[in-house]
Order: sequence, then C-alpha cells, then structure tokens
Amino acid sequence: MDYPSKVLSQAVEQIATLPGIGHKTALRMALHLLRQPREQVHLLATALSELADNTHHCHICHNICDANTCDICADTSRKKDLICVVEDIRDVLAIEQTGLYRGVYHVLGGRISPVEGIGPSDIEIESLVDRVKNGDVSEIIFALSATIEGDTTAYYIYKMLPKGTVKLSSIARGVSVGGELQYTDNITLARSIQNRIPYDGSF
Amino acid sequence: MDYPSKVLSQAVEQIATLPGIGHKTALRMALHLLRQPREQVHLLATALSELADNTHHCHICHNICDANTCDICADTSRKKDLICVVEDIRDVLAIEQTGLYRGVYHVLGGRISPVEGIGPSDIEIESLVDRVKNGDVSEIIFALSATIEGDTTAYYIYKMLPKGTVKLSSIARGVSVGGELQYTDNITLARSIQNRIPYDGSF
Repeated sequence: MDYPSKVLSQAVEQIATLPGIGHKTALRMALHLLRQPREQVHLLATALSELADNTHHCHICHNICDANTCDICADTSRKKDLICVVEDIRDVLAIEQTGLYRGVYHVLGGRISPVEGIGPSDIEIESLVDRVKNGDVSEIIFALSATIEGDTTAYYIYKMLPKGTVKLSSIARGVSVGGELQYTDNITLARSIQNRIPYDGSF
Repeated sequence: MDYPSKVLSQAVEQIATLPGIGHKTALRMALHLLRQPREQVHLLATALSELADNTHHCHICHNICDANTCDICADTSRKKDLICVVEDIRDVLAIEQTGLYRGVYHVLGGRISPVEGIGPSDIEIESLVDRVKNGDVSEIIFALSATIEGDTTAYYIYKMLPKGTVKLSSIARGVSVGGELQYTDNITLARSIQNRIPYDGSF
C-alpha cells in the first residue's frame, strides 16, 4: 500500500515481519505507537535492540539467559543428574510454572522435522549426548510434543545415547486432569489405557 | 511470568504494550526475533525509533507525512476547495485506494466520544473551521463512521461552521455493492430506502 510517509511505511513493513502480523495489523500498531509518548516507543525499540544484543544461551542447557550459565543450571539446589529434554524455551517456562520439577533442562531448540528441513544437526542433540557422556546423569525425561516429529526426536536421541548408562523416561500421555472421557480423542484415550497406572486407593 | 532472562522479560513486556498483543503472543514474537539475524531485529528497532522521531503531521490536513506539508496537500492538481473530513489516517488510505477522489482531506484524529472522554477540543475541529474561514472552501464531505459518535462529530462541526458559506455533504450509506438485501442489517436497509437515488436506467 502507498503510505503518506516513508517513515511510517518502513515501520509498517518491519512490524509486519513479526509472526502472525499482516500489513493491516502492522499499520494499526504503527498508528497506535504514533499516539503514544515518544519515550514509550523508544522503550520498545530499546528493548528489542537489547534482546538482539544482550541475550545469551546457557552453555549447558541452551536456555535463554543474561549470563553464560542460566539461573536453573546455576542453582545448587537443583538435581543436576536429572535432565528434562524439551523443544522450546516456552516448555521450560510451562514446566517451571508447575513448581514441581527440581531437575535441570536441555533445550533442543526444535525437533527433527524432515518436512521443515530440520535435521538432527540443526538442534542441540550432540550437546545433550556430550552432557550424558561427560557428566553424572542418572535420568533423562523426554518432554517433547506428542507428534511424529517429537517421537522421532526422542528415538534419535535414544539411539545416540550410550546404552544402559542412563534411565530414560517420557512424560505421561493421557486424559487431562478434569477432562471427560467422551471428549477425549481416540489416540489419547487408547494411550491412556495402554499406559495405565496401578491404583492403590489414592491419587 | 518469570522469564529466565531480564532482557527477554523486558522485551516481552514492551511488545505486550502493542494493541491486541497479550503476554503469550509477545513471548512468541520475542522468541521469533531471537531466531532472526541480529541485523533484522535492529532494522525493526530502528524503524520504530524513526517512527517516533521523524514523523510529522501535515500542518494543513493533519495527515501523517515526512515533511511539514503532506503530498496530498502539496499536490497542485488536487482540488483544494473540496475537503473530505475523516477520523483516521487509515480512512485517507482507504479513500486514496479508490483512486476516484481528487480533493484534499482533513484528518480529525478521532471522533467526539463522551464515553471515551474525547471532547471536541481533543480532535482537529478548530483547525477545520479555520480552514473554512480562511480559505476558499466550496464543499466539505463528511466521511465519518456511521455511529452515534460519528454523527455527533459531524453535527458539532456543522454547528461550528459559518452558516451558508460552504456546501456540506456526507458519504452515501446503503447496501454495499455486491451485497444481498437479505443479509443487510435493518438500519442500513432502512437508510438505503430513505436516501434512495433517482434511477435513469444507468448505474
């Protein structure tokens, strides 16, 4: 579209590079920013520049952090021999929010997906294998998506790991807490029967 | 939410100030930006800073522009005595896209809305009245929203303008071209019958 101002046009074009933002929404956002105090827009611009320049990935688990090592890996109260393998930083946030997990993580940064052109070398699998080989790891929990890609990734890691040195587990798949059976999809229901757990009168 | 990085946390917080963006979407955008080349993120940040610092409002019509006067007001082939009054810059863009209008604009920057606390002095009504008083204006076209606020704004301007000096008109409201009668809302349909136009065998 032909905007009356080159500066506006550039801003719209740049905002529209964000995921899920089209040109119409980008224009709405740009006009919204124009109505804000100048300092507010600079705060946003500075936060984005800082994001590009000053974020690091933890050299151990590849989580995002401000230093060389993330807070979770640096926390001495965490069980360093228990590694939860996730695809994305958002998965770490989700698990941390439960407040129940006291081990550490390994963020793969994606999953093996031939369709999207993501191979094993594109994600942090080698560094995970190195962690197991070099460190004192007793258990790895796979917390990957319940998709073919997620399963493929878990299987690939399983094949790469030295045999018998480490216990492997996967997070449970089943009917969600509060979920009703009749609304649960077939595959989840089938898996929840397959992977049934012993019942001793308590939950 | 507790993010593993302060820089990330700040970026998410700032992105979430954009209209229609919650914290989850903001996080998705921030993580998307982290996967982009650093220069791309800087381009976005610079475009936003430029937007805050280098956009001007045309001193005649209050459209956004890079100079003191916008391209439309500076265009000598435009009819300067025909002013289309709109609420927003996006309305200018929409009308310009039709390619049919050859007059100039007056961007109010909003509409009178007591509910939102927007009074007549908060939008560019006085400067419009000045344009009519000082200049050679023959017609004003109201292209405002078909809402109570839009009608109120038009009525207020009508009351403020010197009587009888300028022809006033409003864009036609009716069934949209290609629209089917049965799916048109009652008020629009009623208005389209009220404001029926003479038919001479041509469209």
